[in-house]
Amino acid sequence: MLDLVGFDADDTLWHSEIHFQAAHAEFERILGAYLDLADASVHDRLLATERRNIKVFGYGAKGMTLSMIETAVELTGERISAADIHRLVGLGKEILAHPVELLPGVREAVAEVAQRHRVVLITKGDLFHQEAKVRQSGLADLFHRIEIVSEKDPPTYARLFEEFSIDAARFAMVGNSMRSDIEPVVRLGGFGVHVPYPVTWALEREHGLEAGHSRVAVVEALAAVPAALRAFG
Amino acid sequence: MLDLVGFDADDTLWHSEIHFQAAHAEFERILGAYLDLADASVHDRLLATERRNIKVFGYGAKGMTLSMIETAVELTGERISAADIHRLVGLGKEILAHPVELLPGVREAVAEVAQRHRVVLITKGDLFHQEAKVRQSGLADLFHRIEIVSEKDPPTYARLFEEFSIDAARFAMVGNSMRSDIEPVVRLGGFGVHVPYPVTWALEREHGLEAGHSRVAVVEALAAVPAALRAFG
Repeated sequence: MLDLVGFDADDTLWHSEIHFQAAHAEFERILGAYLDLADASVHDRLLATERRNIKVFGYGAKGMTLSMIETAVELTGERISAADIHRLVGLGKEILAHPVELLPGVREAVAEVAQRHRVVLITKGDLFHQEAKVRQSGLADLFHRIEIVSEKDPPTYARLFEEFSIDAARFAMVGNSMRSDIEPVVRLGGFGVHVPYPVTWALEREHGLEAGHSRVAVVEALAAVPAALRAFG
Repeated sequence: MLDLVGFDADDTLWHSEIHFQAAHAEFERILGAYLDLADASVHDRLLATERRNIKVFGYGAKGMTLSMIETAVELTGERISAADIHRLVGLGKEILAHPVELLPGVREAVAEVAQRHRVVLITKGDLFHQEAKVRQSGLADLFHRIEIVSEKDPPTYARLFEEFSIDAARFAMVGNSMRSDIEPVVRLGGFGVHVPYPVTWALEREHGLEAGHSRVAVVEALAAVPAALRAFG
């Protein structure tokens, strides 16, 4: 029944958000030299800057770094030192250069799915960084296609379905984000296997899909994905 | 004889490098408050930082902005103010938000080529920014495919030829960069139409193709591209 299965990458195949959260924690420590952190709601201010800038920067570590710098300048009333701003640039570089760490059982699960269906990788964010991670992951050979997109919304998935020449009803997407991986695919008539990751970026937590949708399965780990797909038919 | 014609985008279909150069000039003016510009070779230092960082950042305005910040911190001995660093972030945002300005005769030239051949757009750099420019350009409908890649080297073109199911010998690339548009395609056995742009980023000027290659035409403007392609066969 399913012709094609898509896998998300960040926080589905390998760790990502923990590296961003580590950078955010270090960002707070750096700002702690200038501010009373108890009053400043640094995290909310950074999130507000990121939300505003996403229209100009898109997703990814470079835009996040520029948003950290803007937030730091604003929150410190332009008192932050050049040396500390240099450290913020370093936080971005650390994320970009961090070795890929696969989640447990990833290769086995994708390989098992690939025996029954064509599989594609669909990931969003910074093209250069995503390509580097795909290369490093050693998983590229399992996928029929690698698609790096700037946004995972219904128009993007609709375009991909056209390029793949498939009906949404014969496509399932596997990923950790209800907002980016599951909701848009289900809205178009496809299936979703939600594999929650312990931490999720605030902007990825916003979605409008009702709980218990008949075309959505929720599983605890990638190892359970092949069975969940078989249950769809 | 040609099955497919690729067009580069930045500085081939629309202006790009002049916006980066304007940002660089403003960068020098900002640093002029801290340095004797006559001694500092700001431009060379920025280029050295960009060259070093391209392995981590890839191409595009966000990476350029982070490289400007790093260079400014280093060249001023950490004396640059937070307010001035904020201005550098603003320079990057200006490039990203700048309206697309098509070069003269672009739509007519691409449309004429599209009457004889399938045409694709092949552009490198920041996915999010390139997509925004393609959308704004109003040219997307002319192209069979839009390919945004992180590097334009022989392996990238070889992968695209495979995806397009064509021989290199039946492909011609049109662009302003000998290094990214012409040399790798010609090395693989394809054709190139070089349309020089008045200014070229230093890192794009490096190439190893001999002058007067039989599969390369050089034309002064996009309007001359259809005739150059016909001359190839």
